[in-house]
Amino acid sequence: MISIFVILVYDTAVERNPKVLKTCRKYLHWTQRSVFQGELSTAQYRALMATLNTTIDPEYDSIVTYTARSPDMVESSTLGVALAGPGDIL
Amino acid sequence: MISIFVILVYDTAVERNPKVLKTCRKYLHWTQRSVFQGELSTAQYRALMATLNTTIDPEYDSIVTYTARSPDMVESSTLGVALAGPGDIL
Repeated sequence: MISIFVILVYDTAVERNPKVLKTCRKYLHWTQRSVFQGELSTAQYRALMATLNTTIDPEYDSIVTYTARSPDMVESSTLGVALAGPGDIL
Repeated sequence: MISIFVILVYDTAVERNPKVLKTCRKYLHWTQRSVFQGELSTAQYRALMATLNTTIDPEYDSIVTYTARSPDMVESSTLGVALAGPGDIL
């Protein structure tokens, strides 16, 4: 199965955050306050985006994703507090 | 000159935000509330990280970066409000 590496940053209204977080947690690992990351199949990625699309208010909320064909293509590094690694949640 | 694609997400205390923002803006484009992105040389990337390292309080603040060898390796997409593209700032 082909998987893609996904970084997701959300900026959503407080009242919609619990639903957004719940959806993101279902598919990805929490990285930092407003960031999730993880590996998904393209089908999972589409399902995630479809669910978020019906959850957010597109006039106020914003969700940005970055995808790469492999986690090897992206290096991550942290300054200061390392809030969570993939191992902490899944 | 080799350039790398950088995504930077900050989670810093309010009192340090202005300095963090100023440093990030010097090197990158603002994407969303707490996200910057852009292309940098490795020297610029090191300078950015060195400056941030002296700016943040490593016990309270957190800065996560994702780098890729080329922007072509990373696809970005937005749901809802597209707050800023590279063109809006530089």
